[in-house]
Amino acid sequence: MITDVTIPFPTSSSPPAWQSHAAATSMTGAPAAPRPLSLRIGFDMQFEIAGPTPTTMLFMLYVHPTVAPQLDAPERLVVDPGMGVEAFPDAFGNRCGRVVAPPGLLRVSYDAVYRSRFENEPQPDESSRQHEAGELPPMVLPFLMGSRYCEVDRLSAVAWDLFGKLPPGGARVLAINEWVFKNIAFGYRLTRPNKTALDTYVERTGVCRDMMHLAITFCRAMNIPARYATGYLGDIDADPDPTPMDFSAFYEVYLDGRWWPMDARHGRARVGRVLMARGRDATDVALVTSFGSHRLTKFTVVTEESAPAAAMSLPGSPEASLALSA
Amino acid sequence: MITDVTIPFPTSSSPPAWQSHAAATSMTGAPAAPRPLSLRIGFDMQFEIAGPTPTTMLFMLYVHPTVAPQLDAPERLVVDPGMGVEAFPDAFGNRCGRVVAPPGLLRVSYDAVYRSRFENEPQPDESSRQHEAGELPPMVLPFLMGSRYCEVDRLSAVAWDLFGKLPPGGARVLAINEWVFKNIAFGYRLTRPNKTALDTYVERTGVCRDMMHLAITFCRAMNIPARYATGYLGDIDADPDPTPMDFSAFYEVYLDGRWWPMDARHGRARVGRVLMARGRDATDVALVTSFGSHRLTKFTVVTEESAPAAAMSLPGSPEASLALSA
Amino acid sequence: MITDVTIPFPTSSSPPAWQSHAAATSMTGAPAAPRPLSLRIGFDMQFEIAGPTPTTMLFMLYVHPTVAPQLDAPERLVVDPGMGVEAFPDAFGNRCGRVVAPPGLLRVSYDAVYRSRFENEPQPDESSRQHEAGELPPMVLPFLMGSRYCEVDRLSAVAWDLFGKLPPGGARVLAINEWVFKNIAFGYRLTRPNKTALDTYVERTGVCRDMMHLAITFCRAMNIPARYATGYLGDIDADPDPTPMDFSAFYEVYLDGRWWPMDARHGRARVGRVLMARGRDATDVALVTSFGSHRLTKFTVVTEESAPAAAMSLPGSPEASLALSA
Amino acid sequence: MITDVTIPFPTSSSPPAWQSHAAATSMTGAPAAPRPLSLRIGFDMQFEIAGPTPTTMLFMLYVHPTVAPQLDAPERLVVDPGMGVEAFPDAFGNRCGRVVAPPGLLRVSYDAVYRSRFENEPQPDESSRQHEAGELPPMVLPFLMGSRYCEVDRLSAVAWDLFGKLPPGGARVLAINEWVFKNIAFGYRLTRPNKTALDTYVERTGVCRDMMHLAITFCRAMNIPARYATGYLGDIDADPDPTPMDFSAFYEVYLDGRWWPMDARHGRARVGRVLMARGRDATDVALVTSFGSHRLTKFTVVTEESAPAAAMSLPGSPEASLALSA
Repeated sequence: MITDVTIPFPTSSSPPAWQSHAAATSMTGAPAAPRPLSLRIGFDMQFEIAGPTPTTMLFMLYVHPTVAPQLDAPERLVVDPGMGVEAFPDAFGNRCGRVVAPPGLLRVSYDAVYRSRFENEPQPDESSRQHEAGELPPMVLPFLMGSRYCEVDRLSAVAWDLFGKLPPGGARVLAINEWVFKNIAFGYRLTRPNKTALDTYVERTGVCRDMMHLAITFCRAMNIPARYATGYLGDIDADPDPTPMDFSAFYEVYLDGRWWPMDARHGRARVGRVLMARGRDATDVALVTSFGSHRLTKFTVVTEESAPAAAMSLPGSPEASLALSA
Repeated sequence: MITDVTIPFPTSSSPPAWQSHAAATSMTGAPAAPRPLSLRIGFDMQFEIAGPTPTTMLFMLYVHPTVAPQLDAPERLVVDPGMGVEAFPDAFGNRCGRVVAPPGLLRVSYDAVYRSRFENEPQPDESSRQHEAGELPPMVLPFLMGSRYCEVDRLSAVAWDLFGKLPPGGARVLAINEWVFKNIAFGYRLTRPNKTALDTYVERTGVCRDMMHLAITFCRAMNIPARYATGYLGDIDADPDPTPMDFSAFYEVYLDGRWWPMDARHGRARVGRVLMARGRDATDVALVTSFGSHRLTKFTVVTEESAPAAAMSLPGSPEASLALSA
Repeated sequence: MITDVTIPFPTSSSPPAWQSHAAATSMTGAPAAPRPLSLRIGFDMQFEIAGPTPTTMLFMLYVHPTVAPQLDAPERLVVDPGMGVEAFPDAFGNRCGRVVAPPGLLRVSYDAVYRSRFENEPQPDESSRQHEAGELPPMVLPFLMGSRYCEVDRLSAVAWDLFGKLPPGGARVLAINEWVFKNIAFGYRLTRPNKTALDTYVERTGVCRDMMHLAITFCRAMNIPARYATGYLGDIDADPDPTPMDFSAFYEVYLDGRWWPMDARHGRARVGRVLMARGRDATDVALVTSFGSHRLTKFTVVTEESAPAAAMSLPGSPEASLALSA
Repeated sequence: MITDVTIPFPTSSSPPAWQSHAAATSMTGAPAAPRPLSLRIGFDMQFEIAGPTPTTMLFMLYVHPTVAPQLDAPERLVVDPGMGVEAFPDAFGNRCGRVVAPPGLLRVSYDAVYRSRFENEPQPDESSRQHEAGELPPMVLPFLMGSRYCEVDRLSAVAWDLFGKLPPGGARVLAINEWVFKNIAFGYRLTRPNKTALDTYVERTGVCRDMMHLAITFCRAMNIPARYATGYLGDIDADPDPTPMDFSAFYEVYLDGRWWPMDARHGRARVGRVLMARGRDATDVALVTSFGSHRLTKFTVVTEESAPAAAMSLPGSPEASLALSA
């Protein structure tokens, strides 16, 4: 038996904030709207649960409620063998799922089509205004503090050395993003589960998660709110990445009264990013958290432009998921 | 001009959870209810704000909304010179205050009478049941994760070495609390702002904050939810502490479907604790967070049993606050 | 041109200390002497030196002077292209080589036959006596102190927790060695250049170098002198190791007035170990230290029992070195 | 009984290297030789040895053999109660003393007159040449490597960021010294026994030991040999320091074929420094190392210009040592 869990999410008739912003931007000078972009997103994960007792697993594998209205149809998270998936929001508004998996194989897959536009995500510019802590919305304040992987206190002097002579606000954020992009070498073998922003700063290596932690820490040290985010990111409008498709970390900064997406690995705005979850750092938005022994035996992610009339392969069948990683 | 800020809080006709629990406990065998306890609580802090620009300060200096109904009268937070204090709840339900303080002297004082009972706070026992992660309320799950000062991942193997042979639940919590109490030497000079649970474990020294971080980290590593808390704690039913009165850290663990207060510095239940704020660790509940340069020039805290008919000294006058620290 | 550097070393007519010890041991009860063991040892390394300036490289790739008399013939360190190799002893009595390598390819190879006996290296036992610091030879004292990868101060409390209840001396050393052997999982991907003993303790993973650092740190914390060592170690009298042959780390402890070899990765005495260098930790005995940019493009090590009359393949020819790694 | 231990040291008829250098320098232009400087140096330490067993203590409390010829008379290290003091050199050529102290009070005092000249210690200048690793004397090479408190590998990228654009050699050393002098705030309470160079870099605070460790680490990361040193340093030709007289750390760098003293706490050359011991970092030259429980109950150091005909107070009497600290 396979359980097909359709995840409910709040619907809204108004477009998400950044989409309307992007539209406004595109109107300046050039009236042509960007063309529609349709993305097929999904994943296929397989686990071996050791047992003998069941293992509780938390998933943060849905798209974020604020972008869920852009899904073509209710998304499907398929769990095999079938079991109850309890869905709930966390304190940051992300959607979480929880299963109590019996020993044996567990497969979790997902497939959806995401409707967006072929345009760069919005970015702050040098003049984007930084807010005084006294005028920040209270909900934003926690994103100024230290967290597990972001030792704001320990990197504060370094941040001021590197960026303190620039004007506050967008100029500092852009300089931080570029510094991390240029100074941290990417490598899958150059990370570890306990790597912190300070480790990344001194070792100058890491994966996207590490780079974002460092950029976030620098921003917070300069009193600029910053939060960690996960999502899908394909090679849309970018050189093909030879490594297997994976989920992608990015971060968001608060300037001019809104949050802006930033990407310290790629060093520039991207097309076709799909937000999954946000938190203070990777601790808050781990894709999978397991309370018990398990082994990940298969992991494929797909993020690709879909032809409007393309027949979608069905998640849940092994053949389909192998095709995803090709 | 002095601003006298009366803090509103939700009122409730039902007693707080632990009070009813305590009552139930006292009924077993001994019908005599504990005598009432009336505590005078408060503080007097003075800061020099360097300037030239104003400094935003966040205060987490109120009693917690859940215990606020036990205050004798609306509490008074006095700010001198008078200025607006913006009050708001944080994501954990704590009450926060924010001021934008001009350069010069800033005085913040507080005075209240707290009504309780002369009885030990409730404690788990060896048989208190630990919940599987699969059955924990979603709001409790974040208190299983790592945080800035609680590197759960790094202390996990150590925790299992030390406590893995004990039965799950209350037995492990009590053993953790006792281990920290017996193995970590207290000393005001033996801490530092960036000291983490791992540092405390290897250095075997710290203040109450460090001890709680270590105990919390051990609990979370054993899959027992634990959160950090701040409060008032006098020498009620305890030997007088020769060091100046200070605020006090403690922590709470989740067993048997509820949160229980624990104190790894004193190693036992206490009488007359007054909860102020709760969070994942000290990052979330810093008493004062300042975005700008300041210097603390005076700091006194009072927590003492008050005679029912005692005339209260008025906060806001220097003489009174000096008396508080005597 | 190929330079063939014959390394001079002090000759001695007396057998090395541990060999005479082993002989004495074997006499108790069983008069049969162990059979001779002849080991072929060597390596072939190739580097690309980026340039444009020459790169200075330090090699600690010789056998130790104290065991050099057991080589069948003067050893040959071959450097291609030919260049001067400056040989000198370091402060610990190890033999070092230094070259100033021009940009381009650099090949360093070595081939020798080592004569020993087929017997376990000597080991302390539970009753081996620990010396008071007051009676240790002055030259031994530095091996009680902290070093780059051995944070004795930070792991001191942990060491006393784990081993403080055992009697001093051999019992503690054997318990330390077994603890590390049983609790640290070996994995080539589970190390990093800056991994310290504390990291290894909390992460419970590492390579042989990390395991020795942890065991050394525990020993020193218990006031038992311990030093780091490198050498050749084949699969003599052991199950074949499926991973490619590599150099091997071990350590030595000072008990009963002498140094004893210990191996926390294998957890037992071994046959056929060949000492190369000793120091406080891996910092002192890095096989290759390069002051400039280089890339290691080939690395093979050979340690195998050689038939007495076997024709030796010549180092310095690519065919031979490929054969070595088969 | 009081044991008066006269420490023998090698005598030499030639002046120490830097003195002849200083003389050469003073001849350029100005023929006037600096006036003689006579310094009274010494200390008085008292310990409580807990017992019940004796405690071994190592002292590195003598002046260095290379400057010992400048003592006015054989120095006296007085140990009370009298006991054997075993004197020996360590691997770096420093003089060490070892006692096995019985439980009870232990007093160690020292008094000497040091003859020097009133002139600044020699300093490198911007053009002082840095040697390639290939041409450094082998004995100098260890001072390029990491050590317990100097994580060269972890601070390497930071060092190259800060100083990589300057020309090699003296210019980098002077910039490193000035950077540490200007960026690290001195404070006795801002250190701890396990504080490393990386800690000092991120915390920007420390004592002289921490500052030297950071400067040494930066130098080594730039391939400039650097070693840690301890000594006496009074307020000669400097503003009086209000804190109690203490021993003083400094460091030495290798440029132009010789070692130069550097002082990152004071940021400039000093008059009247007296070298005691040198090593890789503070691990190698701890003033007192104790293998057992002890408590330091008195600690005074004296370093002051002595009038030529001044009557010397005798060490070993409490009155004298109290006078020393006045």
